[in-house]
Amino acid sequence: MEPLVRAALLEDLGRAGDITSQAIVPNAIQAKAALVARQAGTVAGLAFAQLAFELIDPGLRVTIAIPDAQKISPGETIAIIEGPAQSLLTAERVALNFLGHLSGIATVTASIAGAIAHTKAKITCTRKTTPNLRAAEKYAVRCGGGQNHRFGLDDAILIKDNHIALAGGIGEALRRAKAHAGHLVKIEIEVDTLAQLEEVLRHGADAILLDNMPPAMLRDAVEMVNGQAITEASGRITPETAPAIAETGVDLLSAGWLTHSAPVLDIGLDIET
Amino acid sequence: MEPLVRAALLEDLGRAGDITSQAIVPNAIQAKAALVARQAGTVAGLAFAQLAFELIDPGLRVTIAIPDAQKISPGETIAIIEGPAQSLLTAERVALNFLGHLSGIATVTASIAGAIAHTKAKITCTRKTTPNLRAAEKYAVRCGGGQNHRFGLDDAILIKDNHIALAGGIGEALRRAKAHAGHLVKIEIEVDTLAQLEEVLRHGADAILLDNMPPAMLRDAVEMVNGQAITEASGRITPETAPAIAETGVDLLSAGWLTHSAPVLDIGLDIET
Amino acid sequence: MEPLVRAALLEDLGRAGDITSQAIVPNAIQAKAALVARQAGTVAGLAFAQLAFELIDPGLRVTIAIPDAQKISPGETIAIIEGPAQSLLTAERVALNFLGHLSGIATVTASIAGAIAHTKAKITCTRKTTPNLRAAEKYAVRCGGGQNHRFGLDDAILIKDNHIALAGGIGEALRRAKAHAGHLVKIEIEVDTLAQLEEVLRHGADAILLDNMPPAMLRDAVEMVNGQAITEASGRITPETAPAIAETGVDLLSAGWLTHSAPVLDIGLDIET
Amino acid sequence: MEPLVRAALLEDLGRAGDITSQAIVPNAIQAKAALVARQAGTVAGLAFAQLAFELIDPGLRVTIAIPDAQKISPGETIAIIEGPAQSLLTAERVALNFLGHLSGIATVTASIAGAIAHTKAKITCTRKTTPNLRAAEKYAVRCGGGQNHRFGLDDAILIKDNHIALAGGIGEALRRAKAHAGHLVKIEIEVDTLAQLEEVLRHGADAILLDNMPPAMLRDAVEMVNGQAITEASGRITPETAPAIAETGVDLLSAGWLTHSAPVLDIGLDIET
Amino acid sequence: MEPLVRAALLEDLGRAGDITSQAIVPNAIQAKAALVARQAGTVAGLAFAQLAFELIDPGLRVTIAIPDAQKISPGETIAIIEGPAQSLLTAERVALNFLGHLSGIATVTASIAGAIAHTKAKITCTRKTTPNLRAAEKYAVRCGGGQNHRFGLDDAILIKDNHIALAGGIGEALRRAKAHAGHLVKIEIEVDTLAQLEEVLRHGADAILLDNMPPAMLRDAVEMVNGQAITEASGRITPETAPAIAETGVDLLSAGWLTHSAPVLDIGLDIET
Amino acid sequence: MEPLVRAALLEDLGRAGDITSQAIVPNAIQAKAALVARQAGTVAGLAFAQLAFELIDPGLRVTIAIPDAQKISPGETIAIIEGPAQSLLTAERVALNFLGHLSGIATVTASIAGAIAHTKAKITCTRKTTPNLRAAEKYAVRCGGGQNHRFGLDDAILIKDNHIALAGGIGEALRRAKAHAGHLVKIEIEVDTLAQLEEVLRHGADAILLDNMPPAMLRDAVEMVNGQAITEASGRITPETAPAIAETGVDLLSAGWLTHSAPVLDIGLDIET
Repeated sequence: MEPLVRAALLEDLGRAGDITSQAIVPNAIQAKAALVARQAGTVAGLAFAQLAFELIDPGLRVTIAIPDAQKISPGETIAIIEGPAQSLLTAERVALNFLGHLSGIATVTASIAGAIAHTKAKITCTRKTTPNLRAAEKYAVRCGGGQNHRFGLDDAILIKDNHIALAGGIGEALRRAKAHAGHLVKIEIEVDTLAQLEEVLRHGADAILLDNMPPAMLRDAVEMVNGQAITEASGRITPETAPAIAETGVDLLSAGWLTHSAPVLDIGLDIET
Repeated sequence: MEPLVRAALLEDLGRAGDITSQAIVPNAIQAKAALVARQAGTVAGLAFAQLAFELIDPGLRVTIAIPDAQKISPGETIAIIEGPAQSLLTAERVALNFLGHLSGIATVTASIAGAIAHTKAKITCTRKTTPNLRAAEKYAVRCGGGQNHRFGLDDAILIKDNHIALAGGIGEALRRAKAHAGHLVKIEIEVDTLAQLEEVLRHGADAILLDNMPPAMLRDAVEMVNGQAITEASGRITPETAPAIAETGVDLLSAGWLTHSAPVLDIGLDIET
Repeated sequence: MEPLVRAALLEDLGRAGDITSQAIVPNAIQAKAALVARQAGTVAGLAFAQLAFELIDPGLRVTIAIPDAQKISPGETIAIIEGPAQSLLTAERVALNFLGHLSGIATVTASIAGAIAHTKAKITCTRKTTPNLRAAEKYAVRCGGGQNHRFGLDDAILIKDNHIALAGGIGEALRRAKAHAGHLVKIEIEVDTLAQLEEVLRHGADAILLDNMPPAMLRDAVEMVNGQAITEASGRITPETAPAIAETGVDLLSAGWLTHSAPVLDIGLDIET
Repeated sequence: MEPLVRAALLEDLGRAGDITSQAIVPNAIQAKAALVARQAGTVAGLAFAQLAFELIDPGLRVTIAIPDAQKISPGETIAIIEGPAQSLLTAERVALNFLGHLSGIATVTASIAGAIAHTKAKITCTRKTTPNLRAAEKYAVRCGGGQNHRFGLDDAILIKDNHIALAGGIGEALRRAKAHAGHLVKIEIEVDTLAQLEEVLRHGADAILLDNMPPAMLRDAVEMVNGQAITEASGRITPETAPAIAETGVDLLSAGWLTHSAPVLDIGLDIET
Repeated sequence: MEPLVRAALLEDLGRAGDITSQAIVPNAIQAKAALVARQAGTVAGLAFAQLAFELIDPGLRVTIAIPDAQKISPGETIAIIEGPAQSLLTAERVALNFLGHLSGIATVTASIAGAIAHTKAKITCTRKTTPNLRAAEKYAVRCGGGQNHRFGLDDAILIKDNHIALAGGIGEALRRAKAHAGHLVKIEIEVDTLAQLEEVLRHGADAILLDNMPPAMLRDAVEMVNGQAITEASGRITPETAPAIAETGVDLLSAGWLTHSAPVLDIGLDIET
Repeated sequence: MEPLVRAALLEDLGRAGDITSQAIVPNAIQAKAALVARQAGTVAGLAFAQLAFELIDPGLRVTIAIPDAQKISPGETIAIIEGPAQSLLTAERVALNFLGHLSGIATVTASIAGAIAHTKAKITCTRKTTPNLRAAEKYAVRCGGGQNHRFGLDDAILIKDNHIALAGGIGEALRRAKAHAGHLVKIEIEVDTLAQLEEVLRHGADAILLDNMPPAMLRDAVEMVNGQAITEASGRITPETAPAIAETGVDLLSAGWLTHSAPVLDIGLDIET
C-alpha cells in the first residue's frame, strides 16, 4: 500500500511541491479538517487516505469516525484530520483521489449485494480492474460486501471461449488443464449454451461460468449442474437485473464494471478551524 | 509509460504466470486477433495496449487500424495482433484494461468537446485523477479534444477557498502568492460570488476559476472580467449543461469526472484464426 | 528473471568491475568457451546463464547443446559461448552460480522422481526455498521431473498444526477456512495421526498432508481417504525412502530439501581457444 | 539487509497475503513462539529473521537467547517471538528460510574452522555464492569462524588459469596486472604446479592460490614461497581433509561449498501459548 | 531527499562497509564531533548531512548550531554530532560531500545576491545543474538568496535561438507556443538584439531573456520593454559584473555557473572527544 | 550508467516533457547539430551524452569526432548528432550537463598530470566526489590521465587522524587493521609529521599518506620510507604546486578538488541545419 500512496504523492507534488500552500499558508498554522460525504455510499480506502496525510507530515493526526465497509449518509463526517494546515492541504487531493475511487467501488458493490441479500448468491469482481490498483480495488469490493475472484492469471485456471477454440473443444481443454494444474489449483470453465454445459459436466470442472444466459436458461443450467460444480453467472449484472439472476440458484454473480466503471463517491475536505 | 505497463503485467501474471494458457494453448500455435469496439466512442491508449502485447512477447505484431483520438463505431476493428496465441491471450486483459479505461475518458471528453464546439470555450480536466495514472489520463483527455489543467501541485498556483480562509482574505492570499511565485509561474484563484470576483479583479490574477455559478451569473462574471484574466467555469459540467455554460463566454470548462468517473469503453479481443 | 541476473551481476561487479580481466585480457581478443559438466546430473537454468553473458556483453553468443531438463554425463558440453574474452570471463562466475545452483536442484529432484517412476506418485517441492529465488527454484524442480506446490501464502489454504491449535481443533479450522476461501481456492490440511485424519474426512478437504507417517501408516491413511481428497506424504523423503512411501498409494511426496539443501551441480567453464 | 527481507516477504505473500492465517487465526489472538534448533550447529542470520517478523508486524517482539556465531544443541531455544499470532505465522517461513540457510553455512564453516584450529591456517569462502545473497553468506562464514575472500570482481586482482592462458604466460599476466592496479589493490595468482609457482616467485605477487595440490606438494610450495607471499590452498577442502592441508603451513584454505552447498540447519518454530 | 542520501551512502559503503572503522574503532566507543567551517560562506544542505548520519545509525544525534541560509566564518561550528564513533566516521564523507557541495552553491549565490542588493534585480539559477541533484541545488540557490528558474522542461515555455530558427522566426515561434500552452503556462523567449526584442514586443510574451547584452544595450532593452514583460539578463554574470547589469533595471540575472561550477565550501569534521 | 542518465532525463522532463519543443518544433523536422568546445580542455563523458540522446529518441544518431581522453581546442567539433529536431533539443541540456561536468574534471586532472609528467608521480582523486556520480567522476579522472584511489570505504583500509586518536595511537591502529583485514586488503595510513612516519615504519603499512607536508619535508619522508611503502602526498595540490611536490619522489599526489570543485568545461550545441 505504501508504495502506491508514495508514488501518487510524488505524481502530484512534482519537483517543487505544493507551491500554492507554501506561498499562502504559513507552516506554523494548525488546522482541523473533516472528510465529509457529499453522497450516500459505503466507505473504503481510509487507510490509503490516512497514509497520504501521514507520509506528507507525520504531524498530521487522522481520527476515523466511520470505518471502511460502513454505510454513510450525505453530510456525515468520515474522519477528522488535525495538524499543520499547509501539510493538510498538500495531501488533500491524493487522499481524496484514493478514498473517492475505492468508496465508489464499495458503493456499487454494496448496491448489488443488497439487491441479492435474500438469496444465497454472492457478488464477485473480475480481473477487469484499473491497472496497478487491483489489490486495492478487490479490497473495496470486499468492503462493499462482495467476494473476490482471481487476483491474477496464476491463481486458478479459467478456461474461456478463446482457449476452448484453440484447444479444439471443451473436452480437450479440460484434459490439458487437469494434466497441467498443480494439486492445489482449481479449474473453472466458461460456457454459453446448455449443450456446452452438458459437455463440461461429462468431463468435470470445479466451477462453471455461465456467460450471458437469461434467468430461465440459468435456472436450467443450475438444475443440470446439480451441485457438481460451483456456478457463476456473468454478463449485464446491475442492481436491477441482479435479483432475478440470483434467484435462479447460481452461487455467484460476477461483474467487471464494479471495478472498472464505478463512479467515484463524492467526498470533500472541509476546514473546520 | 513502460514502467506502468510492466507493473500492470506483473500484477496480473503473479509468480506462475498465465497458467490457463500455458496448460491449454501450445507455444507453437499462431493466432490473429482483432481489438473490436463494442460501443461507439473515441480511441485512446493504443500505445499502452501495444506495449502490453510486446512486453509479453516481442513476437507479437500489433497493426493499428484506427489510431488514438479517432472516433469508432460499434463493431469496428481498432487494431490487429498477430503472433503466438499463448502470448496473445496472456497479454489480453492488461491491454484491454488500459485501452478501455483511457478510451472511456477520451469518449466522455469528446462528448463535451462536441457539445461546445460552436463556442470558443474548451473543456479541461483537473487533478482528480486515478492515482498513478495522471499523465495517461491527461493524454486521454487530449485525445478527446480536451485541454489539460495543472499536472500537479508544482505547475502553477491555484488558490482555493481553503487557502483564502487560511490567509485571511483574497487580497492577502494574492499578495502572498505573487511574492512567492517564480517569474514563470501563473496564478489562478477560485471565486464563488461576484463580490469575491470584484475583489480579485482589484488585485489582479492570471486566471479565475468561477465555481458552481449558474449561466446567468457566469455571463455577468465574464463581463466583469472583461479580458483581464482567463476565465474557467467548474461544477456540474455534463454534455447537457455544457453548451449553456460555454455560451456565457468563459474560456474554459473544467470537470473532474472526465478522469475519475468515466466508464470504460467496451472493447473486446476476437480471435480470428 | 532479468532483474535477478542483473542484480547478481552488480553484486559481483561492484563499482569498478572485473579489474583482473580489464588488466590482463585486451578487449579485442575473441574466445570460445564451453560450459562442461564435471558431474552427472540434470541441467536447469541455462536461460539465467545465457542472460548473464548477454547482459555483460550483447556480443557474446551462447549456443545451447543440452537444454534444460536433460540429463548430462561428466565431461559433456552443455553450451558454447563465443565472443570477447574479457566479457566472457567477467560473466563466468554469475552464470555458473545460477546454473550450478538450479542444476543441483534439478538433479536431486530427478533422483527422487526416478526412484518413484514405477508408482503414480509425484515428487513436489515446498515453500522452503532460498530467499528471492523461489520461482527459479520451482522451475528447476519441474526440470527435474517434479511438481510444484504453492508458490506462496496466497495460492491456496494450507492448514498446519499451529493453525489447528490456534483455532481450537480441526473442525473449527476447516469451517473457518471454507467460510473465508474464494470459490477458486483449494484447502489442504496437515495431519499427524489417523485419528486426526478421520476428523478431517468428516469435515472434508481438497487435500491432506500426511506428515511424518511411516509407510504402513501411510497405507492405512490412503485407504481411509479412499479418493475423497488428494494425499501428500512429507517428512524424510530421500531417494532411498521414496519408493516405499510412493508405493503406499499417496498422490504426492513433498520435500523441502530439494530446494533448500541441494548441493550445486559442478559445472565449469573451459576456454577452448 | 532490509531490501532482501522485504523482497522475500513479498515473494511469499503474493497479492492476497497469508490467506490461511487470515481465515483461521483472529487478529486479536496473541501468541508466544520459540525458534528451536532441531540439530546441533552454529547460529547465523538472526537479524534477518527478526526483521522478517518486524516488517510483517511492528507489534511482534523478538528476544534473542543465543546470538549469531554461537553454537547450539538440538532442542535449544534460539529466540522467542511474542505478539499477534496471525502475524507471527505469516512471517514464520521467510524468517526460517533466512535463518536456516545462513546457519547452515555457519555450521559447515565452523566444522572446518574447528578441524584446523591447531594450525595457523584460516578457512575462507569464495565468490561461489547464491545469487544476490553474497554479503549475507559472507557474514555467515564469519559467524562460523571463517574469513572472507573477495566480495566481488573489483576488490582485488585474482589471476586464474584462463587469464594466464589469454595473456600468454604468468610473467606477462603479472606485468599487466601491476601496470593496471591502483596503489591499494592486491594481486593474487593461481598456480597448479611447482614450476608455475617458481615463475610467479620470480615476478612477485601479494598472494598465491595453490590449486588442487596434495599435502606433500603444498608443503614444498610453502617452503618455496618462504613468506614472500600469502599462500592459499583450494580444492576438495572438507572437515576430513582440512587438517592435513592446514598442517602444510599454508595461510588459508578456501572452499566454495561453504556457501553454495551447505545444507540448511534445521530450525523450527514452536508455538508455546 | 532520502533516496539521494541513501544512494550516496551505498555508493560509499560498497558491499563490506567501512572496513577501516570496523577494524579500528570499537562499536561501544562514543564520540562528539563538530562540523566546522574552514572558509567563510553560506550554509546549505544540513538536512542532507543530518540524514546521512541518521541513516547510518539512528543513535547519532545531530544538533544544528547555524542553520541553512546563514552566513558562517572560518572556524565556526555549524553542527554537533554525538553518538557511536564508528558510525560517525562511517557517515562523515557522504555528509560532508553533500554539505560542502550545496554550501558552495549557496556561497556563490550569496556573493552575487549581495552585490546587487541595492537594486530591484534578483539572481536566479538555470537548468545547468549537476545530474540528479537539481532540486537540492535549487534549494541551495534559495539559501543563498537567489530565486529559482524552471525546475525542468515542463514548467514553462522558454523559446531559445534554436527554436526560433527551426520555427522560421520569432513571430511564428510565439504563435505556436501560445496555441500549444495550457492556460497556466507562461512563455519566455530569448533575444540577442534590440531588433529581435522589437519583434517579440509586437507579438507579446510573458518574459524576455536578454542574452549576452552589454549594460548599455540592456538599459535600452529595459526601456523598450517598459513593463510589458519580465526581463532577464544572462551571460557572464559574476560578483564583479553583476552590479552594473542589475542597475540597468532588469528584473532578473541568471547564471548557470551557480550550480554547475561553484567550488565546494570547505567544511571539516573535528572529533572533540 | 543508464540508470543515471535515465534519472537525469526524468528530472528534466517532469510529467509533461519538453513543452517548448513540442509546441514549436514539428516531429517531422530533421536536424544536424554539433557539440562544439567553447574552451580548450580534455573530453570525458561522451557515452553519457550519447545515451541521453538515444534514450530520448533511438532515431538520434551520434557520431563521435574526438573521443574521451583526447584534448580539444576552442571551436572544435566533438560529436555530431543527427535526427528529429524536437528530440535533439529535448535531450540537449542533460547531455551537456553530463559532458560539461565530466570534461571539466578531466581537464583539471590533465592540467596537473601534464605538470608532473617529468616525474614518476601520478595524480589521483579521492572520495570527495559529487554524491551518486563517483564512478563517472573517477572515470573522468582516468580520462585526464589520473589514477583512481579507493572507490569506497570497503576497497582498502585507510587510517586517518581520527582513527588513530580513537585507537590510542599509530601502533594500535595498525595492529587492529592487520588483524581485521582480509588477505587481499591493503592498509594505508595518514601521517602529518616525520615522527609519526617513523612510528608507522616500525609497524609496517602498504601505503602512507603524507598530509600537508611542504616539499622539503616530503623529500625527507620519501627518503625515510625508502621503498618500504607507497607514498602519497596530499594537501593544496594545484598545477602550480604539483611539480615541486612530485619532484620530491612521492609515488602519488591526491587532490579532492579534481572531483568536487572542477568547473564545467564549456561545451555548446550548435544546430547546423
